[in-house]
Amino acid sequence: MLKNIKETEVRFSEVDSMGIVWHGHYIKYFEDGREAFGREHNLGYMDVYEKGFFIPIVNINCSYKKPIEYNGPLTIETRYIDTPAAKIVFEYKLYNKESGDVYATGSSEQVFLTRERELHLTVPEFFVKWKKEKGLLPA
Amino acid sequence: MLKNIKETEVRFSEVDSMGIVWHGHYIKYFEDGREAFGREHNLGYMDVYEKGFFIPIVNINCSYKKPIEYNGPLTIETRYIDTPAAKIVFEYKLYNKESGDVYATGSSEQVFLTRERELHLTVPEFFVKWKKEKGLLPA
Amino acid sequence: MLKNIKETEVRFSEVDSMGIVWHGHYIKYFEDGREAFGREHNLGYMDVYEKGFFIPIVNINCSYKKPIEYNGPLTIETRYIDTPAAKIVFEYKLYNKESGDVYATGSSEQVFLTRERELHLTVPEFFVKWKKEKGLLPA
Amino acid sequence: MLKNIKETEVRFSEVDSMGIVWHGHYIKYFEDGREAFGREHNLGYMDVYEKGFFIPIVNINCSYKKPIEYNGPLTIETRYIDTPAAKIVFEYKLYNKESGDVYATGSSEQVFLTRERELHLTVPEFFVKWKKEKGLLPA
Repeated sequence: MLKNIKETEVRFSEVDSMGIVWHGHYIKYFEDGREAFGREHNLGYMDVYEKGFFIPIVNINCSYKKPIEYNGPLTIETRYIDTPAAKIVFEYKLYNKESGDVYATGSSEQVFLTRERELHLTVPEFFVKWKKEKGLLPA
Repeated sequence: MLKNIKETEVRFSEVDSMGIVWHGHYIKYFEDGREAFGREHNLGYMDVYEKGFFIPIVNINCSYKKPIEYNGPLTIETRYIDTPAAKIVFEYKLYNKESGDVYATGSSEQVFLTRERELHLTVPEFFVKWKKEKGLLPA
Repeated sequence: MLKNIKETEVRFSEVDSMGIVWHGHYIKYFEDGREAFGREHNLGYMDVYEKGFFIPIVNINCSYKKPIEYNGPLTIETRYIDTPAAKIVFEYKLYNKESGDVYATGSSEQVFLTRERELHLTVPEFFVKWKKEKGLLPA
Repeated sequence: MLKNIKETEVRFSEVDSMGIVWHGHYIKYFEDGREAFGREHNLGYMDVYEKGFFIPIVNINCSYKKPIEYNGPLTIETRYIDTPAAKIVFEYKLYNKESGDVYATGSSEQVFLTRERELHLTVPEFFVKWKKEKGLLPA
């Protein structure tokens, strides 16, 4: 399975008045994970932009399991979920690698827009190539 | 239907390098809507806290329809969705009241935690009372 | 004096674990004020961009007087401070219009960059014109 | 000199519509540096809180030298500036350790509040002890 594991840390400014990470910041952690995946696997926003595409998020969800507190480690697991559709799907897990506690799980869905901001209905050539390199399609 | 309509505006700092509102900020707009609903209908975080409860988000999702640009109006519709479970469910719509464009839809689910941060499995008394006041339960 | 008065409100996500607005968000409130000034007086980022310039912040400071709490009104006063230099200077005051409490004061300094991102050392023509319209220079 | 050097990275969500890091986020980077300093030298918010104090920021300033772009390394240098006053003063430098470019410099000033949120006018005992441990005062 194609994935990335990223260690991060909670910023003081991300903790809300209940003393835990404000729920909206999880979406940022997901993006941190997705970008780390992109750097590891050549699929960052900038890589994709150079190929002529934007890949905006069209769907996101997050299921909160346990509050994230200020101290302690925070790990982001980002898994690429292959699909034949003209989409990029990721699943995420935020967890504490020491205790094993899972803080949250979630997923995101991205589509391909051309530079003219039009929806690209088929899988772009560059992404077919990427899938072949990753062994997701026969070379 | 119990709902709140709130006018807001995009902050410059919320616009990303693609020239549109960064997707994570929608979660903040949802919260703005939820808090405006809370102020209108006596169900803000602080109201609930005074009754002895936290109401953390346990699930959130957002479906992105059209990018939000920097200028132009932004309206948040927050609809309360009644459920017999010990939960608070909201649905959201972000839209442009002038053009009618819908930017995003989404939902959130909250549970009741006591001050000792334990999950309250039944509907708290104060919330039963609130439902009666709102005509959602027979008085 | 050229100024703008903007009413705003604290977002739940802006409150930190000490129960008060996290200090970094004041910089965002200053920008809210500056943009409201820009809308009132035709000097928003977008107006300036159309004239061929970026106006990045080169200096900012904030002096914190009293914590801002979650409830209660928040007003931003943004005052334009004229200078003969090729700069735009603003001073800010965050306060509670009901109690009169001043939460913070601050200032910012912006310079003119051309679209090629080069520093424009003299006051741009469009800004001389703006100053004349505002009575800051003889017409 | 007492200092901390922290490597960090720009998040996609921190980049604004001009393609550079939004200026307000520098304040967050300063805090990242200050907290890293706190972890290295036992002076984090939580350490101080356990001693019975809050240390809110009362003054911050930032001087922007060069824009921070999305890719490339970002290093935060946080220097403790000793003062006999009942204050904690830090200076910051954000830079690119590869090119040597300095992105910004700045400073912050914190005071001591008791748990009752009253200003502590003299240097708290725990902080005198900390200074002795750090060789800033004779033991």
